[in-house]
Amino acid sequence: MILTVTPNSALDVTYTVDGLRPDSVHRVREMRARAGGKGINVARVLHTLGEDVRAVATAGGATGNAFTAELSEAGIPADLVPVGGETRRTTTILSTVDDTVTLFNEPGPDLSAQEWTSLVDTVGRHTPDVLVCSGSLPPGAGGYAELLTTGVPAILDTSGAALTAGLSGRPSVVKPNLAELREVTGRADPVAAATELRSRGAGTVVVSLGADGLLAVTEHGVWQAAPSKTLTGNATGAGDAAVAGIALGIAGGEPWPGILRRAVALSGAAVLGPLAGDIDLAHYRRELGAVVVRALPN
Amino acid sequence: MILTVTPNSALDVTYTVDGLRPDSVHRVREMRARAGGKGINVARVLHTLGEDVRAVATAGGATGNAFTAELSEAGIPADLVPVGGETRRTTTILSTVDDTVTLFNEPGPDLSAQEWTSLVDTVGRHTPDVLVCSGSLPPGAGGYAELLTTGVPAILDTSGAALTAGLSGRPSVVKPNLAELREVTGRADPVAAATELRSRGAGTVVVSLGADGLLAVTEHGVWQAAPSKTLTGNATGAGDAAVAGIALGIAGGEPWPGILRRAVALSGAAVLGPLAGDIDLAHYRRELGAVVVRALPN
Repeated sequence: MILTVTPNSALDVTYTVDGLRPDSVHRVREMRARAGGKGINVARVLHTLGEDVRAVATAGGATGNAFTAELSEAGIPADLVPVGGETRRTTTILSTVDDTVTLFNEPGPDLSAQEWTSLVDTVGRHTPDVLVCSGSLPPGAGGYAELLTTGVPAILDTSGAALTAGLSGRPSVVKPNLAELREVTGRADPVAAATELRSRGAGTVVVSLGADGLLAVTEHGVWQAAPSKTLTGNATGAGDAAVAGIALGIAGGEPWPGILRRAVALSGAAVLGPLAGDIDLAHYRRELGAVVVRALPN
Repeated sequence: MILTVTPNSALDVTYTVDGLRPDSVHRVREMRARAGGKGINVARVLHTLGEDVRAVATAGGATGNAFTAELSEAGIPADLVPVGGETRRTTTILSTVDDTVTLFNEPGPDLSAQEWTSLVDTVGRHTPDVLVCSGSLPPGAGGYAELLTTGVPAILDTSGAALTAGLSGRPSVVKPNLAELREVTGRADPVAAATELRSRGAGTVVVSLGADGLLAVTEHGVWQAAPSKTLTGNATGAGDAAVAGIALGIAGGEPWPGILRRAVALSGAAVLGPLAGDIDLAHYRRELGAVVVRALPN
């Protein structure tokens, strides 16, 4: 079983508008709301693939109720930790005229010390094959390192101080993008920066390169995996789908080239899905054999 | 007592962001939520002025609960008609970098025939000095004309088909802006267009001219009222504040020049208020004596 953890969960609301014009009034043509937050997106992708997955997340207030109801409707198994604050919303504006995607993310509620302990205890009650810790930490949360001490292979997908502090928990994999990698290391060269993160506690560093795919700096070598072609669509959630692929590969004991192939194929399938957490299964199956993986000098 | 009616009420959510950049991710710096919809804004202005006002509105679902709670917290007396659908949200993005105001309005839930009847009955239980009917009609609603048959002076502030059909209820005042006036009459000249609306059932037509103030075509003459200076701020809710001023003037039996002075002063006070329904009382008091009203040839 793969267990995902989302301390700063969200109700993702998507508004479709004809065009986004700053300083004017827009009529929302279509509105969709679903449970979100990076770990929930990972769980949704794995659930769509028919994998055994479980989500741990916080939920509070009326927005938390809507979050809980949608997760249950989607059939994603979850352990929800009740919190006193109101679960945040993220609002995505999809403009059909020019295909732009504009996001507004609320910061989310603070956690009490007791709520954080309850989250840690909930994670500790499970013995997953892979643990996935995703997203920002709300104020009042402890550190991801507290969740990573179970001896289970773990993927940590966060940024800034939460990533830096989380390295002391020795995560098997961290997955920064280029900007996040530079922010925590101060280094412009991705391989040098990733090597530094490895020396600070990460087992493998998988760097997302956007449309260029993934770069993995591992104990056994360095690989770059590129999609067979450039895709246009909604890139929100593409990184989470890549994490789902990495988790799936690790759970199956695959070598890194195979893991990266899966992650890049799922990432592309997410770009083609309409909302974060959606994937185009046909693209995933086709692309699995088409991703180009090459070893780089270490 | 002034009674306002808001069939398509809303929870108005305001996000403050550093700058609005289409096709990118924004962190919401500050978030405020309050009961809204045009009639609620009118009631909030009158309540701030210490006037005897009551709001009739629909409320449903979790968003309706938040709407109800905020209205009660603000101390605005209200009769809320429960509806099965979820009360809509409007989201306003305030960008602090360039002072832009960008709105996203959800369409709102359909009303059942029974819910509409319940709204009509709720309005009918009151005998206000002035009745104010504001905003769009949700699908399933009857027409505003059904609310206007009580013999009470009534202000109708809506647009399109809801305005056209509402004229058969012979409202004392309608308050289109220039675009709305042109849309329902097909006429470019505002005095000619307003005169046509009078012939179709409106007692007085008050046309909002944006920063140029108000134009009133009445039984007794035509007046234009202009603010003493151009204001910069959040114009959302400025029209509702003008309606509050018109209602107050009619309730007090004022002649039209005085009513327009009040409406223009309140409209400017709303531009200076941070959110729709807020007014700058000091500006209102100062501006009351400074608004320039002149009679125009009929």
